[in-house]
Amino acid sequence: MAIEIDMERTDLPLVVIPSCFPSMVEPFRRRLDAFSGLARIRMYTDMPTGVDGKADDDELVRRMAPATVALTTGVRFSDAMLARLAPTVRCITFGGTGVANYVDVDEARRLGIRICNAVHYGDNAVAEHAIALLFEITHRAGTLNARMHEEPWPGEDITEIGGMTMGLIGFGGIGHRVAELAPGLGLNLLVWARHPDRDAYERLGIQAADGIDDVFAGADVVSLHLALNDATQGIIGPEQLDLLKPGAIVINTARAELIRPGTLEQRLRRGDIRAGLDVFSPEPLPADDPLRGLDNVVLTPHVAWRSDRALAGIVDQCVRAATAYLTGGEYNVVA
Amino acid sequence: MAIEIDMERTDLPLVVIPSCFPSMVEPFRRRLDAFSGLARIRMYTDMPTGVDGKADDDELVRRMAPATVALTTGVRFSDAMLARLAPTVRCITFGGTGVANYVDVDEARRLGIRICNAVHYGDNAVAEHAIALLFEITHRAGTLNARMHEEPWPGEDITEIGGMTMGLIGFGGIGHRVAELAPGLGLNLLVWARHPDRDAYERLGIQAADGIDDVFAGADVVSLHLALNDATQGIIGPEQLDLLKPGAIVINTARAELIRPGTLEQRLRRGDIRAGLDVFSPEPLPADDPLRGLDNVVLTPHVAWRSDRALAGIVDQCVRAATAYLTGGEYNVVA
Repeated sequence: MAIEIDMERTDLPLVVIPSCFPSMVEPFRRRLDAFSGLARIRMYTDMPTGVDGKADDDELVRRMAPATVALTTGVRFSDAMLARLAPTVRCITFGGTGVANYVDVDEARRLGIRICNAVHYGDNAVAEHAIALLFEITHRAGTLNARMHEEPWPGEDITEIGGMTMGLIGFGGIGHRVAELAPGLGLNLLVWARHPDRDAYERLGIQAADGIDDVFAGADVVSLHLALNDATQGIIGPEQLDLLKPGAIVINTARAELIRPGTLEQRLRRGDIRAGLDVFSPEPLPADDPLRGLDNVVLTPHVAWRSDRALAGIVDQCVRAATAYLTGGEYNVVA
Repeated sequence: MAIEIDMERTDLPLVVIPSCFPSMVEPFRRRLDAFSGLARIRMYTDMPTGVDGKADDDELVRRMAPATVALTTGVRFSDAMLARLAPTVRCITFGGTGVANYVDVDEARRLGIRICNAVHYGDNAVAEHAIALLFEITHRAGTLNARMHEEPWPGEDITEIGGMTMGLIGFGGIGHRVAELAPGLGLNLLVWARHPDRDAYERLGIQAADGIDDVFAGADVVSLHLALNDATQGIIGPEQLDLLKPGAIVINTARAELIRPGTLEQRLRRGDIRAGLDVFSPEPLPADDPLRGLDNVVLTPHVAWRSDRALAGIVDQCVRAATAYLTGGEYNVVA
């Protein structure tokens, strides 16, 4: 289905939303008046897929081809797709921060297509989800609720988080937000970051760690908040995981690829640590992945960023980037 | 099984622990040296029950009868039991705050038996559990984890708690602790208490509500933190529950009897509010209780207080109350 606005205004450039994550349909619809007088709009409210369940690239190209600006969420562009679009499409916005998995930025630059992203929209949502995973591991409310539907009165002791030391690896927007949420809960903070923010550390009562190993050895909870890039891929492996204290908890709401493949699962099999994971490699997590068989891990399907507020934030930033392009300005320009 | 210490010291009074909650066996064992030189100890590490699964009162009386002090957790005393014990037992400690459900305090006073309780041991644990229930309702980590064991990749949006208004009914030890945990998470506080603590309100940025109804009408999350007594039993009913905003959340880690029977379940059936409940009437919750059939409620089996730290705190206070009695002092004396 497509929603069209001002299509009779052929004097105006065309903005196309070629597919839409279901939860974003309403946020987009509410923001489309920002284009009034600037562009015609065609918004598709489905996500076209081929018979194999994967994105239907030909259909996506057909939808975007007449547009000057394409607002995308979850669309992956091959170089061939970019080449087919380049004659008309001059600006593509992406509903996420890291766009390298979605488009070859150098190729887009060569073709003169502006690439825009969205930033920090999910900092609080993801930071809250890291805390939510910690609470599920310690207070087990969701697990106990599930058990209450299977047995009459399942007795379990819980663990208080107050007084624990929470170690953060990375101190960007999300790590910083976790560090704001944690002290009020009685958590002590031990942080490693490539570029420590001494002012923030002092303001938030953070102890700076000398290295990643110090965090793994010293914390009761280690939460990962690094961006994924060549320097961070596989930055954590058995050397770090072996340093964890008995009973320690690992939280990952960042990227699975920060940890070398299979090594966290192997460490969890020893049974003396626990983990809360929102990210996997690959995603969706295969049905037969061994992580699903471990009872000392809480798994959520990459939902940490999927709050109503974060979704609205993404939409808002995509719309701002597009209207900036259309009015000669710049907003969230990556290339 | 019974653990006995210094039983050859027949010159010393006898302290009996007539039954023991499994998680308390180790905390008690670690604290028994406090009685060295003051008392002989006999600690039973089981919970005697009759063929009907209920506590075996005769066996409990048999165990306590030779003691001067009885340290109890979860033991209910009838007046007849008190009468049988009164000739020897002069002090009974209870591992909880409200002892009225466990002993007739006036009758104990008449018989000259000192009654002691334990206080504030679980304030942080219960306050954290109220927050844990809120996170499970909004971020659904435990529910999603359960779904990840049944389906490959269950997609759900989550809800951020930052910016919500949390209304507290009651501001004793636990309510006060919730009010300390909440602001760091970005929750705004609206509190009703019979005796408002204006200094704490100002320090914690709390808005004082004019009444219970104001909290129900104004808050996104209403969390109950009243003690149960004649004045508070049934203090909440349909008049208050009808004031809740669509999407509002009710948290109860206090006592089920604060809400008039059946009325929360009826309100939940309308489907536009959610709840997180750790307390029920009766407990254990009957297998066929209609609350178990609702999908907008998270149920935990009265575990909020059952942290390692709270259990150790109860044991510590019971031991202090007993040693105070044995040395002519007073500690946590109720009657």
